Amino acid sequence: MILLSRFGMYVKFTAKPGQRDALVNILLEGTDSEQLGKECDLYIVNVSDTEPDTIWVTEMWSHPEAHEASLAQEATKASIKRAMPLIAGVEATKVRPVGGKGL
Amino acid sequence: MILLSRFGMYVKFTAKPGQRDALVNILLEGTDSEQLGKECDLYIVNVSDTEPDTIWVTEMWSHPEAHEASLAQEATKASIKRAMPLIAGVEATKVRPVGGKGL
Repeated sequence: MILLSRFGMYVKFTAKPGQRDALVNILLEGTDSEQLGKECDLYIVNVSDTEPDTIWVTEMWSHPEAHEASLAQEATKASIKRAMPLIAGVEATKVRPVGGKGL
Repeated sequence: MILLSRFGMYVKFTAKPGQRDALVNILLEGTDSEQLGKECDLYIVNVSDTEPDTIWVTEMWSHPEAHEASLAQEATKASIKRAMPLIAGVEATKVRPVGGKGL
């Protein structure tokens, strides 16, 4: 498997109290549409069974520019605008996939 | 997409200085074989461009017991035994996938 230019990210969202599920729904918008694009290999929204306000998004893109292009789309900007009031914090960890199973 | 019983994990390994690539190679062993099994949906080994001793493994399994069964295999145990001397630290974050693209 060749992953040389691939780009991955774990994004930890902390929702404001009681807002996790509403934020999950916004984060899932567009995942079946063209919003993510063909260069998005993986975009999984996860919750935590131990931290009730935490959401983790696992992302993998064919290259970093594909991720930036997604953020620049009007539909993405509109989702972000609606998500902002529900978010208490965001931390992103960038990674570089080197191999494995499932992509 | 139905993800009700799925189980995900981010595992952060800190390698001993100079041992990252050797540890990556051990972590990649068996990813194309039966060692992971059909119930492993995703197992991606990632490195960090900013933390030279860090490895992140993104795992997703059809259910938690599938992950435990993998760890109990002799081949996995042998890999872990060889990896241990290269590892300075391990932190695991368990998550529950709720939806998205790519699985």
